[in-house]
Amino acid sequence: MKLLLKVRYDGSYFNGSQVQPGVPTVQGALCAASEEIFGFPCDVTGCSRTDAGVHAKCYVASVYPTGVAVDPDGWCTVPTEKVGRAYNSVLPPYAAVCGAAVVPDSFHPRYDVVYKEYEYLICDAPCRDPFLLTRAWNTGRRFTDEGIGAMKDAARRIVGKKDFRCFMASGSDVKDTVRNVSELTVGRVGEDVLKIGIRADGFLYNMVRIIAGTLAEVGFGKIAPDSIDAIIASGDRSAAGMTAPASGLYLSRVDYGRVIDWKFE
Amino acid sequence: MKLLLKVRYDGSYFNGSQVQPGVPTVQGALCAASEEIFGFPCDVTGCSRTDAGVHAKCYVASVYPTGVAVDPDGWCTVPTEKVGRAYNSVLPPYAAVCGAAVVPDSFHPRYDVVYKEYEYLICDAPCRDPFLLTRAWNTGRRFTDEGIGAMKDAARRIVGKKDFRCFMASGSDVKDTVRNVSELTVGRVGEDVLKIGIRADGFLYNMVRIIAGTLAEVGFGKIAPDSIDAIIASGDRSAAGMTAPASGLYLSRVDYGRVIDWKFE
Repeated sequence: MKLLLKVRYDGSYFNGSQVQPGVPTVQGALCAASEEIFGFPCDVTGCSRTDAGVHAKCYVASVYPTGVAVDPDGWCTVPTEKVGRAYNSVLPPYAAVCGAAVVPDSFHPRYDVVYKEYEYLICDAPCRDPFLLTRAWNTGRRFTDEGIGAMKDAARRIVGKKDFRCFMASGSDVKDTVRNVSELTVGRVGEDVLKIGIRADGFLYNMVRIIAGTLAEVGFGKIAPDSIDAIIASGDRSAAGMTAPASGLYLSRVDYGRVIDWKFE
Repeated sequence: MKLLLKVRYDGSYFNGSQVQPGVPTVQGALCAASEEIFGFPCDVTGCSRTDAGVHAKCYVASVYPTGVAVDPDGWCTVPTEKVGRAYNSVLPPYAAVCGAAVVPDSFHPRYDVVYKEYEYLICDAPCRDPFLLTRAWNTGRRFTDEGIGAMKDAARRIVGKKDFRCFMASGSDVKDTVRNVSELTVGRVGEDVLKIGIRADGFLYNMVRIIAGTLAEVGFGKIAPDSIDAIIASGDRSAAGMTAPASGLYLSRVDYGRVIDWKFE
């Protein structure tokens, strides 16, 4: 058995999700907490790699002992419903385990993903919002209703199973750049806040941030919505818009195509 | 003429609103920004004193030169609609001026208040929310619908012009403890978030936090809603509930009973 954790964190306190020596990372915090709780080192594998500053409302990670001989089915001595509170008593306060489940050894939190959803928040108040400093992209410039209409038009053109190489950060060495974007929504969720919601079977490096940057440029009239098809067809990163800042990005849902029996007491 | 500023700030970065040497305060930040913009020291007077950790969606402060001879009507050389951007280019990012206005010298941002409104946010998810760490009171314990009903009942008993000495922090030397609470609402504003909204002509020291703590204890069944009248009548601080943490409190509105021509470009 593997232990599966559902984790929520404020990414502004972490240098991304992957372990890096000497700086706080989500994986590092979960490794340290696991060892403190169970008394032996554990391998922690996450559902995705998030950059520094990127947030998670729902990040999934598996935990399994490493470098020690354990009973494969009995190593987790904490009742599943008490695992969350055990982690939260040792994790830093800007991260929290809000669910735990037991899954078979064969389960892989990254390879088994059926789809993931991200949200991207943009604050378009002319005056920056101190409460959204690290929680959104503060453009300092208002989108008009027509601009938001153009963003919705552009979003509809992105949806589908396509080669999204144009929305991948240059330098990434991923070969298969076809992904299926099954949903992409844009809309105002507050007086000064827009939300971009995206669902796909997988994401290229920086894909959501480049799509958010491209949609914002559409909203500000710098990119015509009907040029999106040509941008995608070009496969050219430089034809797409800017990479929006990490601060606006939230991993919001991970789906494995099966029911996971999350517990939290 | 005095310059009036409407300020928004994340209180977790400040040691309260009042100037204290050596620590960041709202007044200190506004004084430093004013001197940087205008080239001479200014007196900054706020609409209220907020404690360390208390937030403001709308804090009002006046600015007037001090210790220098200036043209009383010509000292502010920045056009009013550009004052906000001038301050925001020098203020720390967790504070922002979102409006500026010119008012007569006789205007006083504290004495002229007709009413103020505060919001108090409580996160009652069993699992703490990292995004509300410094932005709400995380009780770690769920209010039932009955509990929230009891809080609404208790809130109705607080409304009115009364002697609220029981809701004043002990040690305060204010003599006249009669205040008029014209509105007090309690309700869920998110799946895991409750908002208490309160409007009054003035507030005693820690009054909102003690009312929030008392209402929470009502919601958890520790104080009966129909004992509120006796608690108020007793004038006894120890009869009321706990002081809720500063992190949940937001100054949300200040009304002067007149139209202020706020400008922001």
